[in-house]
Amino acid sequence: MAISLRRARTIIRKALEKGREMGLKPLSVVVLDAGGHVQAFERADGAAPGRFAIAHGKAHGAVMLGMAGTAQMKRAEDQAYFMAAVNGVYGGKVIPVPGGVLIRDRRGAVVGAVGVTGDASEKDAECAMAGIEAAGLQGEI
Amino acid sequence: MAISLRRARTIIRKALEKGREMGLKPLSVVVLDAGGHVQAFERADGAAPGRFAIAHGKAHGAVMLGMAGTAQMKRAEDQAYFMAAVNGVYGGKVIPVPGGVLIRDRRGAVVGAVGVTGDASEKDAECAMAGIEAAGLQGEI
Amino acid sequence: MAISLRRARTIIRKALEKGREMGLKPLSVVVLDAGGHVQAFERADGAAPGRFAIAHGKAHGAVMLGMAGTAQMKRAEDQAYFMAAVNGVYGGKVIPVPGGVLIRDRRGAVVGAVGVTGDASEKDAECAMAGIEAAGLQGEI
Amino acid sequence: MAISLRRARTIIRKALEKGREMGLKPLSVVVLDAGGHVQAFERADGAAPGRFAIAHGKAHGAVMLGMAGTAQMKRAEDQAYFMAAVNGVYGGKVIPVPGGVLIRDRRGAVVGAVGVTGDASEKDAECAMAGIEAAGLQGEI
Repeated sequence: MAISLRRARTIIRKALEKGREMGLKPLSVVVLDAGGHVQAFERADGAAPGRFAIAHGKAHGAVMLGMAGTAQMKRAEDQAYFMAAVNGVYGGKVIPVPGGVLIRDRRGAVVGAVGVTGDASEKDAECAMAGIEAAGLQGEI
Repeated sequence: MAISLRRARTIIRKALEKGREMGLKPLSVVVLDAGGHVQAFERADGAAPGRFAIAHGKAHGAVMLGMAGTAQMKRAEDQAYFMAAVNGVYGGKVIPVPGGVLIRDRRGAVVGAVGVTGDASEKDAECAMAGIEAAGLQGEI
Repeated sequence: MAISLRRARTIIRKALEKGREMGLKPLSVVVLDAGGHVQAFERADGAAPGRFAIAHGKAHGAVMLGMAGTAQMKRAEDQAYFMAAVNGVYGGKVIPVPGGVLIRDRRGAVVGAVGVTGDASEKDAECAMAGIEAAGLQGEI
Repeated sequence: MAISLRRARTIIRKALEKGREMGLKPLSVVVLDAGGHVQAFERADGAAPGRFAIAHGKAHGAVMLGMAGTAQMKRAEDQAYFMAAVNGVYGGKVIPVPGGVLIRDRRGAVVGAVGVTGDASEKDAECAMAGIEAAGLQGEI
């Protein structure tokens, strides 16, 4: 199952909407496919210019490793040099904190990931989940 | 003048719509701000996974050099080694063909760029222009 | 609001002057625009050859993240692996310590950043602020 | 002999001034030292954001190879793949066209280089020479 552009749009809109409802700073949201490639992205007005790379790094690391942001953060806390090395291996495109959320199909296969950045990592992840659920998909924080 | 997310969405939707009307292959469309940073991106269903980087390279080179895709292509045809060197200088993020379209404000200042990829370069550029015009902005192909 | 070259020169001159008044080691000062691109740079006689990259990294990280050097340093102290990953994401161009000072306009929007390096980070930041204030702008350390 | 910051400023000011006198597009000018490291840089108002990298690439290639822009261009025309490989070897930081001007001392030793970009390459080089001569130094186009 691929994530259609229609669904990617729903994920992004709902994640941004959730951020506004929660009173968060302006968010940036990316949706990647099962190969870790960009499907869609939006950066809210007022967000810093470099936010694409952060959102992307969260989602990209999640797909590449098959490990969501929370698990990556735990690994980074236990073994910082390992995640630093992973960052190098993937050309810098890994941000190992919450806000990188895996999308799984009904059988549990990873079909993509969402990356959200702009506020505290846990709140970023909450917004990603809101988007994923609005699209009728299952997320793993 | 910055390009708001609302306008970036209009540009992308209209560019994709134009592509469908013209019967083109599935397009990918990126909108960059005046600093060459990603504002929004969408990849139509059926487009190849690597299309983000092509759309981005078209628009990024245009902003960085202040030179739209058509002018870059002419330079590449006249002096291929120059555009090859420019590609190196910008870390590979330059695709010197039409489809990288500058957005200018009323005084002529560059406020961003649109990158479209997926079909023939000239047709890609035509779709970028359709999006820019729908957003009430002025494009330079 | 863009930072004119005239203002960038004022910032650099006053920052260098402040460093001499304080008896600091030779400083290097960069001014970046709102997109993180170099507007002007000067390296005082006697400064080490690699100081451009340090000054640039301080200011570049600040613009890209919308977070000044002091806030970046706090984050690095709380969560070192996060700032290490951010460094990777931005191709190494991030130095998360004071001396990377954001410039904001009257409404609070980031319009650029100053990076100063050469002496202790806090003193570097003080010189950046002296330059920014001399140019009639508002800095965030 | 090192190029003092005072001299670097003179070079930049005079090169920019020459460009205005000649009615050229807004220029960007970098001065590098004998090790190829940035001493000073200014980007005129209205120049595209990515001009630092182009000016730098012109001057950096000149110092690294000990070969000014005109000689590099000849080599690129004769043997494009060689200059493409040189670009790769130096991490992309080489633009082999006029506007990268070597600075030599009285004995002929290279003490730095000036890189100018913004208009036609030959005109860029003319402005670099104007700056170098105003500083009492000897340039090689």
